[in-house]
Amino acid sequence: MALMVQKFGGTSVGSLDLIRKVADRVIRRKREGNDMVVVLSAMAGETDRLLGLARQMTPMPDPREVDVLISTGEQVSVALFCLACQAHGVEARSLLGFQAKVVTDDLYGKAQIIDIDTSRILDQLNRGRIVAVAGFQGLDMRGNITTLGRGGSDTTAVALAAALKAQVCEIFTDVSGVFTTDPNVHHKARKLERISYEEMLEMASLGAKVMETRSVEFAMKYGVPIHVRHSQSEEPGTMIVEEDETMEAKIVSGVAYSKNEARITVTKVPDQPGMAAKIFTPISAAGIVIDMIIQNTSAGGPGQTDVTFTVPRTDFEKAMTLLRGIAEEIGAEKVLGDEGIAKVSIVGVGMRSHAGVATKMFAALAKEGINIRMISTSEIKISCVISEKYTELAVRALHDAFELDKN
Amino acid sequence: MALMVQKFGGTSVGSLDLIRKVADRVIRRKREGNDMVVVLSAMAGETDRLLGLARQMTPMPDPREVDVLISTGEQVSVALFCLACQAHGVEARSLLGFQAKVVTDDLYGKAQIIDIDTSRILDQLNRGRIVAVAGFQGLDMRGNITTLGRGGSDTTAVALAAALKAQVCEIFTDVSGVFTTDPNVHHKARKLERISYEEMLEMASLGAKVMETRSVEFAMKYGVPIHVRHSQSEEPGTMIVEEDETMEAKIVSGVAYSKNEARITVTKVPDQPGMAAKIFTPISAAGIVIDMIIQNTSAGGPGQTDVTFTVPRTDFEKAMTLLRGIAEEIGAEKVLGDEGIAKVSIVGVGMRSHAGVATKMFAALAKEGINIRMISTSEIKISCVISEKYTELAVRALHDAFELDKN
Repeated sequence: MALMVQKFGGTSVGSLDLIRKVADRVIRRKREGNDMVVVLSAMAGETDRLLGLARQMTPMPDPREVDVLISTGEQVSVALFCLACQAHGVEARSLLGFQAKVVTDDLYGKAQIIDIDTSRILDQLNRGRIVAVAGFQGLDMRGNITTLGRGGSDTTAVALAAALKAQVCEIFTDVSGVFTTDPNVHHKARKLERISYEEMLEMASLGAKVMETRSVEFAMKYGVPIHVRHSQSEEPGTMIVEEDETMEAKIVSGVAYSKNEARITVTKVPDQPGMAAKIFTPISAAGIVIDMIIQNTSAGGPGQTDVTFTVPRTDFEKAMTLLRGIAEEIGAEKVLGDEGIAKVSIVGVGMRSHAGVATKMFAALAKEGINIRMISTSEIKISCVISEKYTELAVRALHDAFELDKN
Repeated sequence: MALMVQKFGGTSVGSLDLIRKVADRVIRRKREGNDMVVVLSAMAGETDRLLGLARQMTPMPDPREVDVLISTGEQVSVALFCLACQAHGVEARSLLGFQAKVVTDDLYGKAQIIDIDTSRILDQLNRGRIVAVAGFQGLDMRGNITTLGRGGSDTTAVALAAALKAQVCEIFTDVSGVFTTDPNVHHKARKLERISYEEMLEMASLGAKVMETRSVEFAMKYGVPIHVRHSQSEEPGTMIVEEDETMEAKIVSGVAYSKNEARITVTKVPDQPGMAAKIFTPISAAGIVIDMIIQNTSAGGPGQTDVTFTVPRTDFEKAMTLLRGIAEEIGAEKVLGDEGIAKVSIVGVGMRSHAGVATKMFAALAKEGINIRMISTSEIKISCVISEKYTELAVRALHDAFELDKN
């Protein structure tokens, strides 16, 4: 007998029939003797529908009221889920964010969970009931409804699992787990049985969309084992857990890629102290997140450097406009932009103890004639920026070079 | 400068455009210097849509979860209303039942308000904001969401007006006020400027559907002046207020009718103590509400009586089945039923101090050849049961006899 938290996303509860299937699944686990806490998202499309109404009212809707509006989506899901359980004669009780005492800060639309008081949930479990908690929502210290932003229901589930010291937090989704790379890019992609939190974080931040990084960070902080699996299948998915020795034996766990970035170079920047701050302070102030930065001696000669970095592609135009002003101000030559780039990365905790990994990566790309434009590394990751058109080729070359199709 | 509570029903907030119009209307009052508290219902059709989903899940859905489900309707309305205010640059803040601290008992689906703590509403008003409270919903003492049943948003509005000591509670609806009788039945029907709580209660319970009796009772108890008016018009409607001398000067204020009842007679009931209890106890136990009761000597002779009474037409079949069993048990002759009846009533606080009102009523009906089947009276009301086919004729005759078209 265990305490389990199961989370079902919007596509898993997208219709009354699907909600019934979720109820069946949860009830089966309950009947095996487990205490079940279920976290549900809004029915697929509902959050967007409500956001659409808000934007029809006013172009920049007050985030407090938007949260009041969109939090109804999860409220509908949990109530219908409990009724589906009732149809099977099984007692279930819904709890909204304020009832499950999910306390957050007051950043509407992207609030962070501060605390969860589990007493009411435990009381319901002790009465033998299934507890259905509305995901994605909480209450700030002054009693306002907040929502947690993208992937918020995952965060609710992980936070509940941590607070309840659950055996496992199962995240049911529309993919069957975490793969060595995107199966749409390489047919040899293999589902991983296990992956460490850190690897998962790198994979997620590099564009492998299974879970938002925030929920993985939360799980890592509190040591919550996560099981990512398909909502329409009984097959086990991927466990996201603490790193262990077997993981280190493998040098590389996965190949990730991202086409969401653009590259910008400011040429012939005067090589004086404070120049980097002059360039990047206005960029950060505009809310633009910079990923890689490289500075090298300019072709223009001594006393000048070229500064190259990447920004999210959605912020590219804004960044270019800002930088043209900055370049003039600091006496740099010009600003060059390139949207046609991609980032491919290899991730693995085994890298820490293995030499020659980077060399092997560069060689694999070189063999396919792929030019590397930028390189960045962390302890368990190596990323290369390349021309966008080579993305899929690079992913396959790296997957094959590190033999990721083999267990 | 006054504190006003305004309530808008489902048809008044049935679309984004209508919500914008409601916001315009509230903002105008706000700009005149009033503190505005607005109570909103769910958008027209939304509550029924949600109830439909619940019933698709299970035929007799758990009322606790139904309340969680359907209370989302008002939540959506208040959020959208606040965004509509924001579009005009006016600050508005939504409060749900639990945030406005509307404490109720735990009778899901038909909860009664026990208490309202107005501190949070007053705090928001002091900050110069319009406060939009979700109608129809509250929270029980254990923190469960409850709803107040039919006309629940009216009750929320009246209860808030009482708790806030508001100058007036304006109920915006799709009729322009309370009429001397149904304008669809008699073209001479006249909108009343004022009506007393007690008259309104009698009118409402007799089938004049403007407000549910519960909210009028609440207003009477706390002396809250109610202004019933049309949401699409600037015309004043009808004030529901304490009785005063001008009202007493008029003998009759209105003519009401109801076609929702049926008549049942149990013939030749042994004339012994305890017979009435034997007949009516099982009926009450089955949740059937009896209105009029008449007992008279049976045509069968001494030692036997006929007992006649009315029940809601929806309970007619159930009552007949029950009574056939009872009749046999107590040795009565038979059970006669008649669904083809109607009740017409005259209502007015002036009756208390005027003689001959009943006589005038009976004469007016007799003049049209309408046979009276049953009569019942209260201090401010006389009701006659007649054959259903004469309903409209009777209403017009009574309206004319008491000259209700004249102010």
